Amino acid sequence: MSTFELSKEYIEHINALIASEDTETLRQEMEGLYPPDVSRILDELEAEPAKFLLSQLDSKLGAEILAGLERSVRKDFLKIFTSEEIARYVNLLDSDDAVDLLNDQPIKVREEVIALLEDREQARFILDLMHYDENVAGGLMQKELVKANINWTVNQCIEEIRKQAEDVQKVYTVYVVDDNNILKGRLSLKKIVLAHKNTKIESLYDQDMIYVETYRPAEEVAELMQRYDLEAIPVVNVQGRLLGKITIDDIVDVITEQASSDTKAMAGLTGDVEEDDTIWKQTRARLPWLLVGMIGGMLAAKFIGLFEADLAVVPAMAAFIPIIGSMGGNVGIQTSSIILQSLADKSAIGESLGLRLARMSMVALLNSLIISTIVFGFNMLMGNGIYLAVVVSLALIAVIFLASFMGTLTPILLDKLGINPAVASGPFITTANDLIGYGVYFGIAHILLKL
Amino acid sequence: MSTFELSKEYIEHINALIASEDTETLRQEMEGLYPPDVSRILDELEAEPAKFLLSQLDSKLGAEILAGLERSVRKDFLKIFTSEEIARYVNLLDSDDAVDLLNDQPIKVREEVIALLEDREQARFILDLMHYDENVAGGLMQKELVKANINWTVNQCIEEIRKQAEDVQKVYTVYVVDDNNILKGRLSLKKIVLAHKNTKIESLYDQDMIYVETYRPAEEVAELMQRYDLEAIPVVNVQGRLLGKITIDDIVDVITEQASSDTKAMAGLTGDVEEDDTIWKQTRARLPWLLVGMIGGMLAAKFIGLFEADLAVVPAMAAFIPIIGSMGGNVGIQTSSIILQSLADKSAIGESLGLRLARMSMVALLNSLIISTIVFGFNMLMGNGIYLAVVVSLALIAVIFLASFMGTLTPILLDKLGINPAVASGPFITTANDLIGYGVYFGIAHILLKL
Repeated sequence: MSTFELSKEYIEHINALIASEDTETLRQEMEGLYPPDVSRILDELEAEPAKFLLSQLDSKLGAEILAGLERSVRKDFLKIFTSEEIARYVNLLDSDDAVDLLNDQPIKVREEVIALLEDREQARFILDLMHYDENVAGGLMQKELVKANINWTVNQCIEEIRKQAEDVQKVYTVYVVDDNNILKGRLSLKKIVLAHKNTKIESLYDQDMIYVETYRPAEEVAELMQRYDLEAIPVVNVQGRLLGKITIDDIVDVITEQASSDTKAMAGLTGDVEEDDTIWKQTRARLPWLLVGMIGGMLAAKFIGLFEADLAVVPAMAAFIPIIGSMGGNVGIQTSSIILQSLADKSAIGESLGLRLARMSMVALLNSLIISTIVFGFNMLMGNGIYLAVVVSLALIAVIFLASFMGTLTPILLDKLGINPAVASGPFITTANDLIGYGVYFGIAHILLKL
Repeated sequence: MSTFELSKEYIEHINALIASEDTETLRQEMEGLYPPDVSRILDELEAEPAKFLLSQLDSKLGAEILAGLERSVRKDFLKIFTSEEIARYVNLLDSDDAVDLLNDQPIKVREEVIALLEDREQARFILDLMHYDENVAGGLMQKELVKANINWTVNQCIEEIRKQAEDVQKVYTVYVVDDNNILKGRLSLKKIVLAHKNTKIESLYDQDMIYVETYRPAEEVAELMQRYDLEAIPVVNVQGRLLGKITIDDIVDVITEQASSDTKAMAGLTGDVEEDDTIWKQTRARLPWLLVGMIGGMLAAKFIGLFEADLAVVPAMAAFIPIIGSMGGNVGIQTSSIILQSLADKSAIGESLGLRLARMSMVALLNSLIISTIVFGFNMLMGNGIYLAVVVSLALIAVIFLASFMGTLTPILLDKLGINPAVASGPFITTANDLIGYGVYFGIAHILLKL
């Protein structure tokens, strides 16, 4: 089967089938697709037709499709479902997906659905998982897994896989536990396939395995799975009891979300905003940084106002305010984003602050010499006079140095203070560098003009 | 086994063991670690001691450790190896890792190593893979996989897994092919475990499976594996012949690299620069955007110079140059990064340009009204006069609108032209918005001051 391309025409075609209640064709078309593709179709439909389409499909398939919807779409969509209807699907979901779905619902619906679940083991799983924060290992794990007692034989293990086969979609590894459910190691399906049926698991399993405790932050789990190329990682409690597993697909989502939220933070956006969010949500996401920039701009205005007398004497000075501001901003963003990247790489040993600053200074020196020389030439060519040319070039050197310094120190400091350095670096550094830049420029100008 | 924390002290301890040639302790310590952790240790050592350490370990383990080194470190490190020594390790690597390693070597070394490989199948694999660009499916795949003929029984399939067991580390899926090596489907290990030994594969395998052709771009493969939650994806040629597979760990690397290179592009850095790169490399990575900013700044200077007469009359006008520039820059970056994110989401249907611009305009209207009202109040409070207050607030509204417009159009246009919109959006938009902003500000001021 080939993969599926979503198009406006296809959505219209589906809408027409729904309108004419051609359930036979609908069912055939949907069963020819993978569940994630049906989810994408539902993402584009109105709630009522989407519900009609979903109701035509097998419940198990429907549950998978619900799990694949965009969370904001699903939240709205489920408003037209009764708690009984939601419970029917939640019954069939993997426990981690069930918790994600329920966490987006109002408390009343959440409690009704859990009370209505036919599968009481599923209800227990869900209640267990709801304790955990979404951003730690416990909040990412699912309870569905295949485990085997260390005292079993391979044959008993295969029987367990057969029993679990319906609940656990993908099995690659069997987790080995002792009588107290303490995780002892793992057994790959490959080993099971190749082993004799009566071999004891004890003599076959791998003891060295990487696991995480429930309280570990999601980024740490992501880092571990990336470093050790893991497809799944078991989750244990502080006593070492096996509680669940986290699969790589959920971690890939963590990684992409992290990257996108860092980019947004750097661009000065607050919260998880997207292009199709409401106008008011988008405005709120943008306003905080714009206000920071505005306050910076008003401070700059106040500050430059102090030099009105100098400006009246040399009005051409005003012309170089932009280059000072943009150079400080650009160098600050470049520097901080390089530092941010080093901070994110937890696998290497951090370097000493002195070495970092020394290296940054050398880079700043080279860049500032090149830039200020060109600008000096430009000023001389334009006949702006040697005084102004010297002032601008000196100010540029100072600004580039200071911006490099701030761009290095700020993220390191924020990181040490436990604040996400990406969130504050962009807006903070840009505004601070602008102000520092103008201070340096007018300061140098004021001194040199007095001479 | 617990995971390992790298520290300066530990590196010193290892260096001491190497210096005293305490090979027994060294070997024991390294064999207690996972290969990726030994790679991280080697990343921190000098070449000679690192080579000594590697030579003490089993070659198979050594090959895995080499595969896990940072590419730039490994490139330097292998300079002190003979082609014979490199060949010994390359012999034991997965074919995709072997190709990555060889691609970083000088052509002479590369050809010598391939000629020296004992495992001639490995040599053929490598030569096959070298044809492909690093950024397409063919360049990401490895040749090692387990495949079964559709006419076999489960038992024959298990024998094949046993034969391949040494070459293929992790087996989750057996690919099913016909006599012409055309990919027909897949068979999960779970099914093999649960099936009767004499069952025909034909009656057991899954026909619907997602595969990619060798020429598909890496980002497309990443998108597919993410959308369908795949741990591995088979790669076929245009005739549908099975050539290799791509595993999720390599795709996770593609995703993180993509995210980091987009962030760098937005921050105005050229190429894949890191904090510990040479000063000259860092300077070159920063210079292009700084030069763009500088040219923008000089144009701004030239432009503002035209209004010197106005500035001489109202020197306070200069004070608001910064707020105009920073507001244009900030709004432009915010807007383009929201658009960039929509463009990256290939799974949704794109919206019409008109709708996008309409939404952006509404957001710009709200933001600009809030900001310009506050700034107007500030100006009145400061006693800057109603004329200047009106000029600044009108200019801010115009600048925020224009920056939103540019920030929406530029990435969409670049994307249509096949240019990576992230690369050009940051620097280009910031500089363009600065200039537009000053034009609007001085234009409005010039007209109003004439009245």
